[in-house]
Amino acid sequence: MEFCPINLQEKLAKFSEHWSPKIIAQMNNYYFKLVKFRGEFIWHSHADTDEVFITLDGEMSIEFRDGKVDLKSGEMFVVPKGVEHKPFAEKECKIMLVEPAGTINTGDAGGDLTAQDNVWI
Amino acid sequence: MEFCPINLQEKLAKFSEHWSPKIIAQMNNYYFKLVKFRGEFIWHSHADTDEVFITLDGEMSIEFRDGKVDLKSGEMFVVPKGVEHKPFAEKECKIMLVEPAGTINTGDAGGDLTAQDNVWI
Repeated sequence: MEFCPINLQEKLAKFSEHWSPKIIAQMNNYYFKLVKFRGEFIWHSHADTDEVFITLDGEMSIEFRDGKVDLKSGEMFVVPKGVEHKPFAEKECKIMLVEPAGTINTGDAGGDLTAQDNVWI
Repeated sequence: MEFCPINLQEKLAKFSEHWSPKIIAQMNNYYFKLVKFRGEFIWHSHADTDEVFITLDGEMSIEFRDGKVDLKSGEMFVVPKGVEHKPFAEKECKIMLVEPAGTINTGDAGGDLTAQDNVWI
């Protein structure tokens, strides 16, 4: 067993691309991922799982078909499974995601923004 | 569906006792909890699950039978299931825990520090 803390800022400094989650930790069959948002993502949903967004630095919004939630640094939100959502950040925002291993960033929608789901940093 | 962000500082301000985790969010069958540590906890383990510690404010350590990890604000660690550990914080430290619903803070050890496992704030 290794006794190394996982430092979020050090991990965030290791990549610059947007909308491309990187795995930093595993708990049972769940992954903790870091991701940088900027601009508008696509509408999508995850049929089989809730998805947790924790804002680490910056501001972002998650748009829903019937509402919107604004998250600033130190705030979190759980998107329920099956609920369509579209993340948005006017300026770069740094986020931690928590979700089951194998969860695809674009969910049911697919497309060009689909990222590899197994990249550790 | 409610469109309210969960603000970690606001939730932390709602309680002062130590070693008594409060639930702030649920993702599938997992809970996100806030807890304040001060002093020394007891040796225990969780036979069926990993446990995630994310330090939000302050410094803490997790002692293991064969080592120790020191966590400061913005650092996290995953304690593997079945591994004996003993959290410690010289000064008050604010922490987010992520673990399955029903996980007991004292694990297999029980005793006076065992907290209710279902308190939401």
